[in-house]
Amino acid sequence: MNNIPPGSAIGVDLGGTKIHAAVVGPDGTVISEHRLPTDVGGGPMKVVGDIVRAVRDELDADLSVIDAVGVGLAGQIDPETGVVRSSPNLKWTDFPFGERLQQALGVPVVVENDVTTAAWGEWRHGAGRGIDDLLVLYVGTGVGGGIVSDGRLLAGDRGMAGEVGHMTIVAGGRQCNCPNRGCLEAYVGGWAIAERAVEAVVANPEAGRGLLDMARGAELTARLVAEAADAGDDLALELMYDTGQYLGAGLTGLIHIFNPARVILGGGVIEGSPGLVLAAESVVRANAIPAYTDGLEVRRSELGGNAGVIGSASMALERVVSGSNQL
Amino acid sequence: MNNIPPGSAIGVDLGGTKIHAAVVGPDGTVISEHRLPTDVGGGPMKVVGDIVRAVRDELDADLSVIDAVGVGLAGQIDPETGVVRSSPNLKWTDFPFGERLQQALGVPVVVENDVTTAAWGEWRHGAGRGIDDLLVLYVGTGVGGGIVSDGRLLAGDRGMAGEVGHMTIVAGGRQCNCPNRGCLEAYVGGWAIAERAVEAVVANPEAGRGLLDMARGAELTARLVAEAADAGDDLALELMYDTGQYLGAGLTGLIHIFNPARVILGGGVIEGSPGLVLAAESVVRANAIPAYTDGLEVRRSELGGNAGVIGSASMALERVVSGSNQL
Repeated sequence: MNNIPPGSAIGVDLGGTKIHAAVVGPDGTVISEHRLPTDVGGGPMKVVGDIVRAVRDELDADLSVIDAVGVGLAGQIDPETGVVRSSPNLKWTDFPFGERLQQALGVPVVVENDVTTAAWGEWRHGAGRGIDDLLVLYVGTGVGGGIVSDGRLLAGDRGMAGEVGHMTIVAGGRQCNCPNRGCLEAYVGGWAIAERAVEAVVANPEAGRGLLDMARGAELTARLVAEAADAGDDLALELMYDTGQYLGAGLTGLIHIFNPARVILGGGVIEGSPGLVLAAESVVRANAIPAYTDGLEVRRSELGGNAGVIGSASMALERVVSGSNQL
Repeated sequence: MNNIPPGSAIGVDLGGTKIHAAVVGPDGTVISEHRLPTDVGGGPMKVVGDIVRAVRDELDADLSVIDAVGVGLAGQIDPETGVVRSSPNLKWTDFPFGERLQQALGVPVVVENDVTTAAWGEWRHGAGRGIDDLLVLYVGTGVGGGIVSDGRLLAGDRGMAGEVGHMTIVAGGRQCNCPNRGCLEAYVGGWAIAERAVEAVVANPEAGRGLLDMARGAELTARLVAEAADAGDDLALELMYDTGQYLGAGLTGLIHIFNPARVILGGGVIEGSPGLVLAAESVVRANAIPAYTDGLEVRRSELGGNAGVIGSASMALERVVSGSNQL
């Protein structure tokens, strides 16, 4: 068994297809980790059991020296009770997940939205270390984020603050997956880039030939558009250029609203097209009120796929130590 | 001389045309007040002198029982030092206003942006009393606001958070007074409503006849558009309808970002067209993710023209008492 330093905690990144569990040291280092598929069809108690087995048998950790277990998952969570109100990926509704997992493990459990825990990870141990006014924006299939203002992660009235993907950037614009039109996500989210690509190809099949050739009969995806742009395809370049403009337009608004010292961009779309970081930053620097960009830094996330486990472990430990965990 | 209850403070709303000074009781009541014109041409020390005279001679207040003086003014302020970095209305740049006024009065002085102090007033003594997650949006000639999250007014890295008027709601849209395009202010600010009215009249002079008749050769203003809409003019009604849609689009984004329990709308445009509150609220309720509107209230501001003096007095007192005033 590993020699686990005091102040370590366990973080679990619970997705719709896989579970990533890790022992995380007080400095944010991943000490041991394990990945397993998520058995969504088995129901919530099967997932609880799988997490317990992974933690007990695979993480090589003496649970008696672990003070907290944090879990991040996509969905609406009540962080104070650990109840998962709704998680479309996991197909759970009003499941007292935190309580069940805590009973099974005998260690305090903290449950939070996965974007929130990842943002916390970047803040505490990644590209946002030491920054009191920080905006973390994840651009993946969906778009979400975390906002640290004056040294505190914003929670909002019901713990749902930070849905920056659903800020309107084109009033009356593209229909989002949410009821609103013109959300940031409806332009720069992975699904939206794919939709915009399909529309562009339909509108101009000649220009879309390169993209269609690369797709080889499969669906157009944001990843494919990014690859085609890297390969010099004109239509794909235009789509990615527009994506940078939209992302910059959204960021300009967020910077005026929060006056952050640093912005961190991460998520699958950014990993697939790292040039978007510079593209969005130039839009912001050209368009924002100068006082807001004087001391502003825009960076790429540092923790990548480990942000979830690192953030949920770190957040859980702080909440348990500070006594703000209510379970 | 009035019998001033303990815990009273003086608030000053310092505008480009007039100064409003008041003694404000601990419950937010205006105990005595005085208004005088702002002598912008006389320079900053003339304004300091005028405020000192108003406070000493007109407010009927024994300064020895006053613990704090707060001043709200339009511009970029450094609240920690009381330096006014730039105020276009007053034509000041890098003036150590807080220090000068404090020296002259012999009472601790706190200086803040006027929208911030007004939002504070609504939070402490107006339509936002007791609410820990509150969004106050002022729609006047410009658009600004204050955001209370988890019981704290957001300041941002350099004290400039809350510029919600400059969130992008139409990427690549109307040019704002700031370098950005498509800001909320560029659609719903008083100056923007007037601009949109002029464009609509130019585009369709026939439809614009009613507005032009009402203007009687004078400039089209937001107030005139509101009055024409009240009188049933079709073009004015359409302009105000669109204003409600834009305001609602911006609010929908802000609600997803902050998850507030209450939104307060105030400012000249709202006072002139109170129907905008309900119009914007219906857009939000139709378009936002339902979990964000379940417990949400949208209200009109309560303090009106007194928000500035009440808010600056109350904020100054809290800062001085808590020791966070640095002057």
